[in-house]
Amino acid sequence: MENASRGGIALVGFDADDTLWRSQDYFDEAQAQFERIISRYVDLADVGRRLYGYEARNLAFFGYGVKGMALSMVEAAVEITDERIAATDIKRIVALAKELLRHPVELLDGVREAVEAVAARYPVVLITKGDLFHQEAKVRESGLADRFRRIEIVSEKDPATYARLLEEFGVPARRFLMVGNSLRSDIAPVLELGGWGVHVPYHRTWMHEAEVPSIPGRARMREVAAIDRLAQAVVELDTLASAAEQNKGVDA
Amino acid sequence: MENASRGGIALVGFDADDTLWRSQDYFDEAQAQFERIISRYVDLADVGRRLYGYEARNLAFFGYGVKGMALSMVEAAVEITDERIAATDIKRIVALAKELLRHPVELLDGVREAVEAVAARYPVVLITKGDLFHQEAKVRESGLADRFRRIEIVSEKDPATYARLLEEFGVPARRFLMVGNSLRSDIAPVLELGGWGVHVPYHRTWMHEAEVPSIPGRARMREVAAIDRLAQAVVELDTLASAAEQNKGVDA
Repeated sequence: MENASRGGIALVGFDADDTLWRSQDYFDEAQAQFERIISRYVDLADVGRRLYGYEARNLAFFGYGVKGMALSMVEAAVEITDERIAATDIKRIVALAKELLRHPVELLDGVREAVEAVAARYPVVLITKGDLFHQEAKVRESGLADRFRRIEIVSEKDPATYARLLEEFGVPARRFLMVGNSLRSDIAPVLELGGWGVHVPYHRTWMHEAEVPSIPGRARMREVAAIDRLAQAVVELDTLASAAEQNKGVDA
Repeated sequence: MENASRGGIALVGFDADDTLWRSQDYFDEAQAQFERIISRYVDLADVGRRLYGYEARNLAFFGYGVKGMALSMVEAAVEITDERIAATDIKRIVALAKELLRHPVELLDGVREAVEAVAARYPVVLITKGDLFHQEAKVRESGLADRFRRIEIVSEKDPATYARLLEEFGVPARRFLMVGNSLRSDIAPVLELGGWGVHVPYHRTWMHEAEVPSIPGRARMREVAAIDRLAQAVVELDTLASAAEQNKGVDA
């Protein structure tokens, strides 16, 4: 897959949720509905934070995604209400999950054009974490699947995962650039491997993703205010990557 | 990845659940516990079949795996008991899912030796469906991960999925052999593409997998009573595959 021509960026990876399409908004809405259900049993200001406690502890069992969130909600509902929650409200919580799994895929403004502009110059792949079944459904519905050479759904976006994928792609990290809204999942691990990143912030971030680690190699990263600036940022970093390749030792 | 030497089998894929390690037994045990919980509310002989009704309908929302099963159990528990189920029993159902997600991985008898015998002669990959997070954990714990060149966790094992994977591997279907316990998921779709299969039946089959479609190309399949016969069956089919390749038109 490597484009050997100049030694610059040979592959661009895109995150999906909240980079290409809306996701966190739906989770936030489901959580707001959960809080309304719980508020009929207990008068607590911190139901959202308590729920996150269950979700965070259960990540080790469930991983990311709607189904794990729903099971955490069910568990949290039982415990937060001291086992007083009615079965009919439990059913409502399961229904929230089903709604979330079936919501339409809404591309963010300018995404289609931005992906096409980058794909015109570089091979592009999609790298997203979460539930395999749900992510595949969203990719299908997005209408963007054909743009990507590969679609990789992973359980965690850490340096080991990116290293494994890059080995499969046959592209060294120093020639790989990742685009995404999460510093923690999309940018930091790729920079850590020696790669490049364009951060496209989203207006909402899940608490878990908001815990940003220290970011090594910040000079190999750009932040753009909106995705219509993406293609230019990629080209700028590509120029730096080419220069770094030609003057080994001049690493950013 | 293709072994071009003779034109026979160039890649062998292994299913995981109930082919390499026990899985259905744990699901059956969880279902038995679910039935015991429900039996305290209603006197029904067909709780298991009713639960399967929920699971089958919810596959379109949840896909395969423990988390989807657990959400179906919660939904079924509420409806089967006419909303009388107590919150504490709902919590027990969520706990069943957690136990299932954390059960130890028990390799089936003879699996380690059988995988090694095949891997000594052919490149091997693991192809399993279900929950990404749970399957990855099981692969890690199995101690077999290093044997496989690739580990592919997919949401559905149908001809389209196998065709996509084979394209990624660079191996034509006529040189691919799949090993597994499910005729529906492991054998039939591969035979349909023109590939080869070794069926290793397991003593328990989930209702869903027991619905066996018609099997085209049965001559390209072997069934072995136990996995210690696997390596020999693979070699036999490899011989047929080589012959078919050399006498194009003599397809089995």
